[in-house]
Amino acid sequence: MIRIVILGTGNVAKHLFDAFIAQNTIEIVQVYGRNRRALDKFKARIDVTSDFSKIKEADVYIMAISDDAIVDVSKKLPLQKGLVVHTSGSIPMTSLSNNTRRGVFYPLQTFSANRKVVFKEVPMCIEAENRVDYDLLHELASNISNAVIQIDSDQRKSLHLAAVFANNFSNHMYLKAQEVCEQNSIPFDILRPLIKETAAKIQDLPPLDAQTGPAKRNNLGTIEKHLAQLENENEKKIYSLLSKSIQNTYGKKL
Amino acid sequence: MIRIVILGTGNVAKHLFDAFIAQNTIEIVQVYGRNRRALDKFKARIDVTSDFSKIKEADVYIMAISDDAIVDVSKKLPLQKGLVVHTSGSIPMTSLSNNTRRGVFYPLQTFSANRKVVFKEVPMCIEAENRVDYDLLHELASNISNAVIQIDSDQRKSLHLAAVFANNFSNHMYLKAQEVCEQNSIPFDILRPLIKETAAKIQDLPPLDAQTGPAKRNNLGTIEKHLAQLENENEKKIYSLLSKSIQNTYGKKL
Repeated sequence: MIRIVILGTGNVAKHLFDAFIAQNTIEIVQVYGRNRRALDKFKARIDVTSDFSKIKEADVYIMAISDDAIVDVSKKLPLQKGLVVHTSGSIPMTSLSNNTRRGVFYPLQTFSANRKVVFKEVPMCIEAENRVDYDLLHELASNISNAVIQIDSDQRKSLHLAAVFANNFSNHMYLKAQEVCEQNSIPFDILRPLIKETAAKIQDLPPLDAQTGPAKRNNLGTIEKHLAQLENENEKKIYSLLSKSIQNTYGKKL
Repeated sequence: MIRIVILGTGNVAKHLFDAFIAQNTIEIVQVYGRNRRALDKFKARIDVTSDFSKIKEADVYIMAISDDAIVDVSKKLPLQKGLVVHTSGSIPMTSLSNNTRRGVFYPLQTFSANRKVVFKEVPMCIEAENRVDYDLLHELASNISNAVIQIDSDQRKSLHLAAVFANNFSNHMYLKAQEVCEQNSIPFDILRPLIKETAAKIQDLPPLDAQTGPAKRNNLGTIEKHLAQLENENEKKIYSLLSKSIQNTYGKKL
């Protein structure tokens, strides 16, 4: 039985809570949160506190809090023992206070309040300072995920950057597509199957092979027509830069 | 029974062929293709020809050929009757020769050679010059898809542009993510569940609500660190432009 305390009450904290509470090999001892109202959703099922001095003993303390708060909270934790981990993609392990044992427990996924995540498929990127702590995190992560991976702080920094392209920027492309639809009285729903298939393809194919479209084919006529259709300067710039980048990728020297 | 001739032997032609051949209310009379070798994959199951003068009689002629060839082929077709449609997102219906009845039969999906497509979910965007031809195309499309939509040439032009953002540019973001991974010895596989979930979210949520990440949170420190990590000028430009566009979307005036 691994005993854990979860620090934080946001999306990541809530999703980790839901994943761990379903395991009978893990005991969630307590949830800590600064915001008492946010603790309400946990307190029917588990001990909660907003007071650092009342944090209970556990094997692992999981900080699922905002990046900006990690360094400060890790310094304030009045712990004698236990392993303290954060869940951030972009903060080095060594940013945590060295008053305690430390590590990283980073779930590589996008979490929203009202969407259930299949945790078994979420890559859990873990890091620790020594073998014993690594094994503990590996056991903890294996309880909820089939994809536990050792990723050091440098790699994690790059992985987080890659995730910005794969997730944040893709989603922004969906928004731009929606805006083009709305400006022309086309329901955005019509694009949803295309978006689903675009991502489904990547589960089997490398992105280089999955690319289609006018920029890939270097179809200059269509590219020019599309640029003329876009009214907004920002959208023109995005269309132009990404088309050039694709043309360049497929051997057209610009 | 609707009788059709498919003109073309590429991905769209092959996927349409597979979808129609499975229907017992549709008869594929013939496949026409300029390239005899490409016709081989059809000829065991259906009559094929490379000779315009040997094209058989049918109710609908579906041109699944490259955009550049549509106007020319439509002029050369030696037809007395039948409805001629193309399958392109970006070519107006009126580009087809007015020697014949004409229309558009545009499946809004990304087709690859070795990937099966669930046609029932593919939006079929149809257009015709009159009610009788529209009804014929609607019946034809309803045989293979549950999502048949009337889209005129202007809307289709915009829809095609929106699809470039939703599909082509998203896929390019996956490629950039893969490059960041490879430069840092991280297997790209680790990002696949994130890509899948990014698109899955959009099946329920509007893109505006699904957005996450440093640009959405206006986290300037992380944005600067990411820009410093990117070595390639093109990637820096893409990161910077898309981050600004996201910041702008969420109320940060730049």
